[in-house]
Amino acid sequence: MALLESTIAAISSQDREARGKAKERLEQLTMPHWALGRVMDLALDLAGMTGSIKPAVAKKAIVVMAGDHGVVAEGVSKFPQEVTTQMVGNFVNGGAGINAMARLAGAEVVVVDMGVAADLGPLVQAGKVVDKKIGAGTANIACGPAMTREQAVLAIEAGIEVAMDLGKRIDLFGTGDMGIGNTTPSTAIVASLTGASVEEVTGRGTGLDDQQLHTKIDVIKKILAVNKPDSRDGLDVLAKVGGFEIGGIAGVILGAAAQRKPVLVDGFISTAGALIAQSLAPDVKDYIIASHRSVEQGHKIMQEHLGCRPLLDLDLRLGEGTGAALAMHLVEAAVRVLTEVATFEEAMVAGALE
Amino acid sequence: MALLESTIAAISSQDREARGKAKERLEQLTMPHWALGRVMDLALDLAGMTGSIKPAVAKKAIVVMAGDHGVVAEGVSKFPQEVTTQMVGNFVNGGAGINAMARLAGAEVVVVDMGVAADLGPLVQAGKVVDKKIGAGTANIACGPAMTREQAVLAIEAGIEVAMDLGKRIDLFGTGDMGIGNTTPSTAIVASLTGASVEEVTGRGTGLDDQQLHTKIDVIKKILAVNKPDSRDGLDVLAKVGGFEIGGIAGVILGAAAQRKPVLVDGFISTAGALIAQSLAPDVKDYIIASHRSVEQGHKIMQEHLGCRPLLDLDLRLGEGTGAALAMHLVEAAVRVLTEVATFEEAMVAGALE
Repeated sequence: MALLESTIAAISSQDREARGKAKERLEQLTMPHWALGRVMDLALDLAGMTGSIKPAVAKKAIVVMAGDHGVVAEGVSKFPQEVTTQMVGNFVNGGAGINAMARLAGAEVVVVDMGVAADLGPLVQAGKVVDKKIGAGTANIACGPAMTREQAVLAIEAGIEVAMDLGKRIDLFGTGDMGIGNTTPSTAIVASLTGASVEEVTGRGTGLDDQQLHTKIDVIKKILAVNKPDSRDGLDVLAKVGGFEIGGIAGVILGAAAQRKPVLVDGFISTAGALIAQSLAPDVKDYIIASHRSVEQGHKIMQEHLGCRPLLDLDLRLGEGTGAALAMHLVEAAVRVLTEVATFEEAMVAGALE
Repeated sequence: MALLESTIAAISSQDREARGKAKERLEQLTMPHWALGRVMDLALDLAGMTGSIKPAVAKKAIVVMAGDHGVVAEGVSKFPQEVTTQMVGNFVNGGAGINAMARLAGAEVVVVDMGVAADLGPLVQAGKVVDKKIGAGTANIACGPAMTREQAVLAIEAGIEVAMDLGKRIDLFGTGDMGIGNTTPSTAIVASLTGASVEEVTGRGTGLDDQQLHTKIDVIKKILAVNKPDSRDGLDVLAKVGGFEIGGIAGVILGAAAQRKPVLVDGFISTAGALIAQSLAPDVKDYIIASHRSVEQGHKIMQEHLGCRPLLDLDLRLGEGTGAALAMHLVEAAVRVLTEVATFEEAMVAGALE
């Protein structure tokens, strides 16, 4: 608990002075006022987050948190639980969507076992997976809590540790997830923390049909009725209806914010992690960049609650951190606008505007 | 006219076989069906455009077409005409928004003088600006046609020549524009070709206030009443209410399509060029990627008429090709998804999905 508490205590709002200096420069660029719109808004945020008008973003990592979910016993996913482990293998072999998107972004992929229901020992020993396993999958949240409150703290602290370790060499974080069944706990989290109805926030995950969607809605209602998570207490929500990898994601976000480094939050599951982080440390929002708007219908409600407008809207619903990796380019673009475009004065010195 | 006719004749729809092969592969990737949404749609288009399931997109150029507009005499722009020339200088010196965005995209910036109302001779002789000047700015379209029909053909053919020359070494095109006052002809073009009302499609350009916006609407109504462009004839529309750089953009788009190469169309002015190109060769749409949705309010109507859904929506209103350069990353991402993500079969061979 000490690490969680010290991390929360280290998070404060953006640097107003750096934001102000960035704004001053952006308003003098050789273009009509604020003509690069949201790219310029993002540049302001990056200055505020990093406290610099030359924000460092070159060294990038996507942290893919993996975990399993006892609730798959309720038939909430089209894919069997083994796919979580198989996809971890795919990440390690470089063949998944996130590998391709991260290579393009120049980001490394860090795969963390937060709670996969299989022995990943050989991959851990080979240095290809970071071992932060809290348990071999959560308990079935349709019957009781996902984990103990102590485990919830450990999961978040594991994420913080990953972020702190990476922070020694990484400027820009992206979150990602892998866990068959994890749209169900994420949906329960958004319903708990925002007060939205289960129907409003329940989507088709990786491709449920109408009947399966109804089943999922019923399961989520049962989850909330059985566990009665306390909406004012993010740790209670995570422990009762969350997941180990969701706790890990919350930890990465808190750890990035405590280091004043920007973190691109991916899709529905990652944003559930962000909501947990925000409930523990409201200022964490100042370091979050919402990378995209997912197809998953509850995502919009999550992002509105978080107060973050997403950069991309490309009908993504993969997770793994793919949207975060794609949006890293816009982060770099924002820094380029701030640092490479000439002001009117500079252009006159160069002779262009004589 | 021979070059325009042969170029139009060379444009045919996308390669269905390559699209089919790409679809087959994308449906076997190690992810839920079509989980990367519009990035996968784009991958299909790139396969169809290039006729390859490994579409070449590495070598990129943004063609920035520059020209002036006699209609600035009506007070339709906040900036004086000299800014067109000054910004060409800024492009050449590498200090403009497009330079920063193109460097990030790994794209070269090709600046073309289509009709700037100043002598750019020294920049042309230094090899920094391509000389395709049709005239020293268009005539004031509030009083009569912008140019002759012959000049309209020459402007489009100049753009085709630029695209053909570049096509020897460039895989992926982006369009850009520079021309003080050029939202006015672009607005007249969209009103002519789509039948939308002037009020619906007239925006604030680089930052007009309410009074200036009313003036602009009145000027555009006058332009249409004076010139009566024939909506069934793109050349007539270009000649009467267009601009030299807009013709050049239409030419680049036609030239790219004739070479079966993708072209990212930038904002409001570039899309006016695309509408002219489409009116001459409807299949050109198959090679157009709408890079973004501009703040300029007529842009949505243009893109709907064109039948292209934009990739980005970032409140951009700069032009210069900045949105096209930003979207090049998504084009690369689409190719990576098609070529780098493992299929289920490949992942099994690699041991990830055993």
